[in-house]
Amino acid sequence: MEQHTDKLAADFILTGASRLVTAAPGTHPSADGALGVITRGALAAHAGRIVWIGPENQLAAHVALDGLPKDAWLDAGGRAVLPGFVDSHTHFVFAGDRAEEFQLRHAGVSYEELAARGGGILNTVRATRSASAHKLEVIAREHLRGFLIHGTTTVEGKTGYGLDLETEARCLDVMHTLATAPADMPRIVPTFLGAHTIPPEYRDTPDGRARYVDLVCEEMLPDFAGRARFCDVFCERTAFTVPETRRILERARDLGYQLKLHANQLGPSGGAGLAAALGATSADHLDFASDDEMDALARAGVVGTLLPGCSFSLSIPYPAARRLYAAGVPVALATDFNPGTSYSENMQMMIALAVSAMGMTLDQALVAATHGGARALAMEDEVGSLEVGKRCDLIVLSTADERHLAYHFGVNLVARTVVGGVPCAP
Amino acid sequence: MEQHTDKLAADFILTGASRLVTAAPGTHPSADGALGVITRGALAAHAGRIVWIGPENQLAAHVALDGLPKDAWLDAGGRAVLPGFVDSHTHFVFAGDRAEEFQLRHAGVSYEELAARGGGILNTVRATRSASAHKLEVIAREHLRGFLIHGTTTVEGKTGYGLDLETEARCLDVMHTLATAPADMPRIVPTFLGAHTIPPEYRDTPDGRARYVDLVCEEMLPDFAGRARFCDVFCERTAFTVPETRRILERARDLGYQLKLHANQLGPSGGAGLAAALGATSADHLDFASDDEMDALARAGVVGTLLPGCSFSLSIPYPAARRLYAAGVPVALATDFNPGTSYSENMQMMIALAVSAMGMTLDQALVAATHGGARALAMEDEVGSLEVGKRCDLIVLSTADERHLAYHFGVNLVARTVVGGVPCAP
Repeated sequence: MEQHTDKLAADFILTGASRLVTAAPGTHPSADGALGVITRGALAAHAGRIVWIGPENQLAAHVALDGLPKDAWLDAGGRAVLPGFVDSHTHFVFAGDRAEEFQLRHAGVSYEELAARGGGILNTVRATRSASAHKLEVIAREHLRGFLIHGTTTVEGKTGYGLDLETEARCLDVMHTLATAPADMPRIVPTFLGAHTIPPEYRDTPDGRARYVDLVCEEMLPDFAGRARFCDVFCERTAFTVPETRRILERARDLGYQLKLHANQLGPSGGAGLAAALGATSADHLDFASDDEMDALARAGVVGTLLPGCSFSLSIPYPAARRLYAAGVPVALATDFNPGTSYSENMQMMIALAVSAMGMTLDQALVAATHGGARALAMEDEVGSLEVGKRCDLIVLSTADERHLAYHFGVNLVARTVVGGVPCAP
Repeated sequence: MEQHTDKLAADFILTGASRLVTAAPGTHPSADGALGVITRGALAAHAGRIVWIGPENQLAAHVALDGLPKDAWLDAGGRAVLPGFVDSHTHFVFAGDRAEEFQLRHAGVSYEELAARGGGILNTVRATRSASAHKLEVIAREHLRGFLIHGTTTVEGKTGYGLDLETEARCLDVMHTLATAPADMPRIVPTFLGAHTIPPEYRDTPDGRARYVDLVCEEMLPDFAGRARFCDVFCERTAFTVPETRRILERARDLGYQLKLHANQLGPSGGAGLAAALGATSADHLDFASDDEMDALARAGVVGTLLPGCSFSLSIPYPAARRLYAAGVPVALATDFNPGTSYSENMQMMIALAVSAMGMTLDQALVAATHGGARALAMEDEVGSLEVGKRCDLIVLSTADERHLAYHFGVNLVARTVVGGVPCAP
């Protein structure tokens, strides 16, 4: 039967949202407050993108609903709906774990002693190097499932536990394989972090560092160009210096990578200033950034990515979120999911930490975990808010009010995760 | 067919535990370390109690396995098994929530302003008073489900949001109804906390306080004797004084109640000293207990119950767990689940906070969350560890090693909860 209508075509309809949090205030006449909340909201998508959003009682007037199959409808059942979380900083491809090391550290065993026992990042490098692509894929898939059931619909993933051409390539391959998996996956954004630490085989000779930076710049970066969207460097006293970082990132930029930095996590490394100077997309951690550096980041439009899971895991002070807001730096919140310093896939936990331990408001934390994360991946035109034209990536909570986030803590409040208009989890 | 055997009869068999954490070191020759871990362990129960525990390869020699129905077996599948958590301090019977108040408080709105808007504990009292027994039961059942899926098999519950004879009785009734529900519930231990705060109708006259304490002592306590196992008082500058607390608890003791105190949460209330003097079963919070008070608690054998969820929720410093251990006070860890200051049913979150924010080791936190909780309920002969003769209350993790607790944080690592030999959740 031919259909004569000027209504919008759709293949996914969400109804019954008590509060539809757009995270895009000002984009819709019904979207109230700092989070742009539409009360009793609905949404329609076509081919994975949002085509209409608004109050449910206006849905039928705008969207062609007749004849839509039953499985095109998702009833939020009077619960709150939010954009899926965008986790812009993780290291989800690795083998092994460091649970024992974590517990020993918290039982008072020193870093030096743990290192002497083979602990730390090189522990994970050993396990990752000896793991097959298949094994890494199985493990990574399980991690991604963890992200998904906790509401993350876009996840950045870094290499950096290979530290040789072959293993770094294998980790990138795993991300690409998973990114093209048929379904039930968050979107994956691959980042090359060959400069995570100096690999063990380059540590014993005076020119080892320089030779490894050469390897990164002259072999790895050209080889991976186009396969990793970002290049990241761990710029820290214990890792790569500012000149080394600059050399790597300038080379990466020339090859078409976008830039990120692990900056000022453990001390005033100068990484934040470099991120501003290079116009990086984001500078991450920022536990020790000075006021001048924050101002520079703000002027350069660099996103400051805060990773409170590290502070929680390491029992160290939290980054000064309020100073970033005061300086006008755009803020993202991410898990830093990794086996050493933040083993959590749950962005809701980071939101709770942001509110409880970093003095952020829930509105700030929610925006940082969605729109902020999208900006930190230069994907704000695609994901991070619920707006017409963007990807239909959203979560349905188990509660009617998004203000239960942070308040009702330590539990998973996500009942349903939708990626590209497809309900994926649980 | 007649069976001739001197083997133990069982109706529940657990096998396949990579690590069977008994939390009862020294009770079994195979139980190693501070947690009494049996590698490749198994366990048998009959009529809800453990009849045998040990290495799996010795199971068949001791337990009659022939002809056991398939559903009597639970295969842990190579994952870790622990005693169910004993959450010895919660307020799970209430109506309404205070999500908006929580978010406003963290957005900088003052306590005074929130109180003027009708916030705080009296908000919950209003909602609870106006809720029917059926409504309270439905809500409480949902909370109990939350405890269960996160691994709690015994949960204490306090009244204290009624503050009048009728509503306090209704809240006790709800706990009794749920305690006798057919299945899929944690064990419930009811506590009477009529002295939670001075109810609003007693606040406007000079003798109001005294009249409310009279009501508690002369009507409520006699009425509820035998129906609540414990009597608890919120002894605090903003609630009940030491003399008021003493009067209530001495009356309760005479009526056969066991005693608990909310002590030294917000300041040096003197509650901890009183708990020691009265020989209470536990003194809870202890954020501001002096060294002398800690010594007194240790001498009196009073359990110190730590509630880190409050500190997390209120963004205030954490209680000094290490001082309790140094003083020799037995330590319990609990959620303080309530709608105002700790809205979390998840003991795993409390374990993570204990390790990350209170300097406890995982072994300490696990013992405090199981055996410690049992001691805080005077139930250490029944629950809190996996030993022959005790209830078969246990959890199967989703991971092979209990050391993933605290380390892999912000997620639910409990795959299966068993109460009295019956798998209940998920």
